[in-house]
Amino acid sequence: MTKSDLEIAHASKMQPISKIAAKLGIQEDDLRPYGKYVAKLPLRLIDESKIKGKKLILVTAITPTLAGEGKTTASIGLAEGLNKIGVKTAVVLREPSLGPVFGMKGGAAGGGYAQVLPMESINLHFTGDFAAVEKAHNLLSALVDNHIHNQKNTLNIDPRKIIWKRVMDMNERALRDIVIGLGGSAQGIPRESGFDITAASEVMAALCLSNDLMDLKQKLGNIIIGYTYDDEPVRAYQLNAQGAMTALMKHTIMPNLVQTIEGNPAIIHGGPFANIAQGSNSIIATKMGLSLADYVVTEAGFASDLGGEKFLDLKCQYGNLKPDAVVIVATIRALKSHSGIPFPDLKIPNADAVAFGLPNLEKHIENMRHFMLIPVVAINKFATDSVEEIQVVIDRCEKLGVKVALCEAWEKGGEGATDLALAVKEAAESGKSNFTPLYRFEWSIEQKIEIIARKIYGAAEVEYSVKAKQQIKLFKKIGLDKLAVCIAKTQYSLSDDPKLTNRPSGFTIKIREFDIAAGAGFIIPIAGTIMRMPGLPSKPAAESIDIDADGNITGLF
Amino acid sequence: MTKSDLEIAHASKMQPISKIAAKLGIQEDDLRPYGKYVAKLPLRLIDESKIKGKKLILVTAITPTLAGEGKTTASIGLAEGLNKIGVKTAVVLREPSLGPVFGMKGGAAGGGYAQVLPMESINLHFTGDFAAVEKAHNLLSALVDNHIHNQKNTLNIDPRKIIWKRVMDMNERALRDIVIGLGGSAQGIPRESGFDITAASEVMAALCLSNDLMDLKQKLGNIIIGYTYDDEPVRAYQLNAQGAMTALMKHTIMPNLVQTIEGNPAIIHGGPFANIAQGSNSIIATKMGLSLADYVVTEAGFASDLGGEKFLDLKCQYGNLKPDAVVIVATIRALKSHSGIPFPDLKIPNADAVAFGLPNLEKHIENMRHFMLIPVVAINKFATDSVEEIQVVIDRCEKLGVKVALCEAWEKGGEGATDLALAVKEAAESGKSNFTPLYRFEWSIEQKIEIIARKIYGAAEVEYSVKAKQQIKLFKKIGLDKLAVCIAKTQYSLSDDPKLTNRPSGFTIKIREFDIAAGAGFIIPIAGTIMRMPGLPSKPAAESIDIDADGNITGLF
Repeated sequence: MTKSDLEIAHASKMQPISKIAAKLGIQEDDLRPYGKYVAKLPLRLIDESKIKGKKLILVTAITPTLAGEGKTTASIGLAEGLNKIGVKTAVVLREPSLGPVFGMKGGAAGGGYAQVLPMESINLHFTGDFAAVEKAHNLLSALVDNHIHNQKNTLNIDPRKIIWKRVMDMNERALRDIVIGLGGSAQGIPRESGFDITAASEVMAALCLSNDLMDLKQKLGNIIIGYTYDDEPVRAYQLNAQGAMTALMKHTIMPNLVQTIEGNPAIIHGGPFANIAQGSNSIIATKMGLSLADYVVTEAGFASDLGGEKFLDLKCQYGNLKPDAVVIVATIRALKSHSGIPFPDLKIPNADAVAFGLPNLEKHIENMRHFMLIPVVAINKFATDSVEEIQVVIDRCEKLGVKVALCEAWEKGGEGATDLALAVKEAAESGKSNFTPLYRFEWSIEQKIEIIARKIYGAAEVEYSVKAKQQIKLFKKIGLDKLAVCIAKTQYSLSDDPKLTNRPSGFTIKIREFDIAAGAGFIIPIAGTIMRMPGLPSKPAAESIDIDADGNITGLF
Repeated sequence: MTKSDLEIAHASKMQPISKIAAKLGIQEDDLRPYGKYVAKLPLRLIDESKIKGKKLILVTAITPTLAGEGKTTASIGLAEGLNKIGVKTAVVLREPSLGPVFGMKGGAAGGGYAQVLPMESINLHFTGDFAAVEKAHNLLSALVDNHIHNQKNTLNIDPRKIIWKRVMDMNERALRDIVIGLGGSAQGIPRESGFDITAASEVMAALCLSNDLMDLKQKLGNIIIGYTYDDEPVRAYQLNAQGAMTALMKHTIMPNLVQTIEGNPAIIHGGPFANIAQGSNSIIATKMGLSLADYVVTEAGFASDLGGEKFLDLKCQYGNLKPDAVVIVATIRALKSHSGIPFPDLKIPNADAVAFGLPNLEKHIENMRHFMLIPVVAINKFATDSVEEIQVVIDRCEKLGVKVALCEAWEKGGEGATDLALAVKEAAESGKSNFTPLYRFEWSIEQKIEIIARKIYGAAEVEYSVKAKQQIKLFKKIGLDKLAVCIAKTQYSLSDDPKLTNRPSGFTIKIREFDIAAGAGFIIPIAGTIMRMPGLPSKPAAESIDIDADGNITGLF
């Protein structure tokens, strides 16, 4: 019988975190411990002079199914594999959001024999980073409503134009659209508002794009909370909010060190969404990894058109990072899904269907080449994959001149990823990657959007709604046009229509409107409907989670 | 110039938490550290066999002014004083709520030279206990709305009769009264609801009244979230919520060890309100202190009629605790306020006004004697107090046969509290206290309320509204009548009318309605208007809080 992730995690013997730190040359005294197996790392361990010459490996994926294609598992497995072949590697990941843990998804700390530990702590509260982001965000919300109610609204904020909501790390559909300030004049101004999930907070995005504490404070101060009656933007610093917000994040800005099942270092920090935000861990965590290890393996949410593109254009440009190779995770399951096979039937071997789905993989390979990066395809192997199916993928990759390797880390740990590790090492050390972002921030908003839509999504056209056109004018007027763009669209298609699977072409990307994250440093062109607050399913995972008298947790998977 | 609390805290050299633990006989390996100066303590260190023979000292107060009378400072000072005279003492306190830190109050970790350290950590997030309580509470809220929306409401919950709100540790007036579930049929059922501050959560009350993890799980399962269309109570276990809620609190249930400025052990755990809940730290923390030290000094919110009475009737009965002496903190300022002098004029010496306010102190002394406890009066000395004013209090206490001592810990630390420590030691070791709760849980609801109202408040009558009478009937029907009572009323008067200062008599306590905390184990008769969610003031403290590049926080006071 297959063991659950939690059972495997429990059966693994952890080392004290000081031992893991020692592998990275960190003194015990430099650690800020959270229990015996988790510690925060001080920012002074980041050393720009050591980063040069280190190898940064991005893990992205093809267009996924509803279940995801195991990017985190593959990243952890690759790091184990690299360590196994003698390369001192740290895996650098995002922190899981608590909301989905109680919903459908269970934990988010890898799976099988490719996990980060302690699994329950990482999934439940961890070091309080999400809680601190939530608190900093909601402090600003409280200051906004208090200003209008209690300070005679000297900033002239139009309550109808407040765009800053509140956040909660919970799948909470009932809080998506609410009316606040009811109950009479002592309770402030009644107005429409709502809650997003904490991972969607601009504070989270800002944390993950900051280079240090003062950079974070500046970003938080620059958050636009809404507009005046005269349509001037109102920023957080006008409410004197950024000092207290940053004070709340004094420790949050420090990356968290944990360990993989095989006792290798893992750095986990930050967790912004991959559609409305950049979808990857913090610049600080990535630089910490590069300062301390020789290789850093890191992942970005969803496929190459979402987290991948944002990692490369947004995070790498803001953090001055240069990846040396990129791994594209593909599964036989997802390739078959791109031939139109419904999800429940994806376990049935069907090599023709795999072949039919390959153009999706080809497009993601092409996308990474647009950034002048050497891609390696990792086939994340499932027990149900047939030999013929796998061969179809290998043959095509060889035809395309792309290295390909199986990743069996879920089943075998690092031992199942040494081939992949060797392929990645060769690619990274070939010196053939010459990372080049797709656009520069100083381009116009339309230019930035269009190069992504055409080159990465494969769109024929970009269409802007009347509202979007008005917003572009406003952004030029108030100086937001030189920020990065972070396009929000479905993860289930390269296009903005989730039904267009595989490699669609000739389609038009429709920019409905923009959200902004002026503090974090980007604007968000919205193509399609975007969910900033998930809901619980009809059978929430929370109902099955339990704990016994000895503190053993069950039902996390 | 007087130094701020934060400046004094920063000037104090802290010892590693392992050194503080060693003073209590705790091995370093038993600690769950949170940084270098904070650690959680495992529940296995509680040893009932060691608790017998240890001394438990409750610190309560006279009816306070708006500014509070320094109960926490006096408690810390007394513990320092006891340690100075050679008594191995731990001070056991509540955790500060983050909301008020950003509002009017600033920090809540003592003051002057009687503080617990590290002050900023304790005030900002600490070990995440409040965040975990908040998350557990809000998970239940999400499950309630999800049940109605997504599970066809098989429990037959009447959305209009849901009493379980959401919580946030923030001063958030705009969230007091809200309408949720708007935005169409995909967002659930629109209904009225709101947020309380996290300290007011029943989860917090349950945590602090639990004896262990399984006791907590049972209490959480017993929470009543609302009623069916047939007026049957619906409990959290019917939503299968208690397992996941308790899993979220796996570490939260462990008390937190920190240190005083003088390097003595302080245990800080839980922070329930003192009007709608019991207002004192956890039973677990108190027992931990008694297991490890010879004396435990602990405080309860507001005066003897609120936190004091609840500590003794509710916490001591649920935890099987027996205090050996009680300290009543009085200030010259508060005594003068009971003669009707307005707050801004309280600094002007006026011995006659002090004498006029003494009946308030006399009543609190009498109250503690109703519990068969030996009281000691601590005059918490301010720089503006005159010799004559202080003498008035000393003379009256001597006339009443009550020990009295100055507490100058704010200015001088433990050195300023040795007289108080000697008086408390003598009282505790006299063997004259014979703690007896005022009522037994099996009494009727009315009997329990009336003995408190008459004996402790000094009321002539208790009056119940029609609604309250109906609720009493309901509680008998659904079996809630044998729970403790936790009367919610103003802290500014012994009566339920904040304008009746000093020692009012002949008044009627009006029970308007009841709230319930069926999981935590009490019902809440409400006498007056009760605030479960504070608001920010017109000049929030948050606006002055800042942090520099080195992580130094300023503006906390």
